[in-house]
Amino acid sequence: MLDKNELTYVATHFDFWDKLNPLEKNIFENNIVKVKYNKGFNLHSSDSECLGVLLIKSGGLRVYILSEDGREVTLYRLSPNDVCVLSASCILNNITFDVHIDAESDTEAYLLNIGAFSRLHSQNVYVENFAYKNTIERFSDVMWAFEQILFLSFDKRLAIFLLDELNKSDSDEITLTQDQIAKYIGSAREVVSRMLKAFQNQGILEQSRGSIRITDKNKLKHLI
Amino acid sequence: MLDKNELTYVATHFDFWDKLNPLEKNIFENNIVKVKYNKGFNLHSSDSECLGVLLIKSGGLRVYILSEDGREVTLYRLSPNDVCVLSASCILNNITFDVHIDAESDTEAYLLNIGAFSRLHSQNVYVENFAYKNTIERFSDVMWAFEQILFLSFDKRLAIFLLDELNKSDSDEITLTQDQIAKYIGSAREVVSRMLKAFQNQGILEQSRGSIRITDKNKLKHLI
Repeated sequence: MLDKNELTYVATHFDFWDKLNPLEKNIFENNIVKVKYNKGFNLHSSDSECLGVLLIKSGGLRVYILSEDGREVTLYRLSPNDVCVLSASCILNNITFDVHIDAESDTEAYLLNIGAFSRLHSQNVYVENFAYKNTIERFSDVMWAFEQILFLSFDKRLAIFLLDELNKSDSDEITLTQDQIAKYIGSAREVVSRMLKAFQNQGILEQSRGSIRITDKNKLKHLI
Repeated sequence: MLDKNELTYVATHFDFWDKLNPLEKNIFENNIVKVKYNKGFNLHSSDSECLGVLLIKSGGLRVYILSEDGREVTLYRLSPNDVCVLSASCILNNITFDVHIDAESDTEAYLLNIGAFSRLHSQNVYVENFAYKNTIERFSDVMWAFEQILFLSFDKRLAIFLLDELNKSDSDEITLTQDQIAKYIGSAREVVSRMLKAFQNQGILEQSRGSIRITDKNKLKHLI
């Protein structure tokens, strides 16, 4: 059972809390636990059992699709305070696609297990609505990702990605391998490698093993 | 005002009807009208005003995204009895992307105008719920479209598309131009043209101006 502070935190982010009756609050409290996932752990896939709904406390998750021949396309990434509903997609009838969810870094989260979530979801329309609203936000994320993949030239996509990463990190260093970048933006490592080299030749960045230092942010912005 | 038969039809498909109170039913009845769109008419775009929710009676709609340089990618198509909610996306806060909606053929529909829908949506959680559920179904359609575009080889995509069209038409004839096919499957006309010629050489189909006759359905199925 979570302590009082944790429960307050959780109730703020599962904003159906106020619409639960006492019995439902009881179900909620008895079925939410703190979980930890190591970096790289796959917590949801087409084969795995349905986990439930997650509220991320620290770390982050990456949600992606996987082709039969092993190609990955990242749909979106979740950060602390984000709620992950697709890890409970088995009870959402209208979701007919499969996603994979990995911990991007060591991640702590609160997990409302699938049994409790299923029960609350079926008997309380506000819980159902919460799940839908969250899913539709992710729909918007997915549309954004696909518009980038389908419509943007690759140099723009890579520039946007690098600037986003830069803004997150609060430094001029991005600690990602070419392989990771390729996965995140749905491309091949060779293509990323070629474009990073081109950026390097333009004096935009310097590469070293597993990290990239942006030396001219304005030039990078200018690409977009 | 719709007649009794029409209202029964409409109430069946807007399945929040039973959850409306008498006043809300009144709002609904006074704000739903029959509309007609000519083939090719653009009824929703990023610039246009928000129409409201549509229930298609006959004909069909195509929902697509458009790049800055004019490339189209079809997200999904709607048929009779389908409800179109993205034509009211302005009141759905979580939808942050723009789509375009065209009439694919002469189309008759029932339109619940945006003012009434907005009012019902904000005061009745079941109307809100209906809009979300419908949107999430479309999310699944979109994921399907994107998985095809991103993961399937082009011959498979085209074969699946032709078989779908064949099943709809109940004949061995598909009356679509290469240009239309390219739009529907999010490709370029030249690519479609090349692949259709390859299929023709394999004895799968015959082409004439604006239409395609499938001569060997089994060979086509075999491609998938």
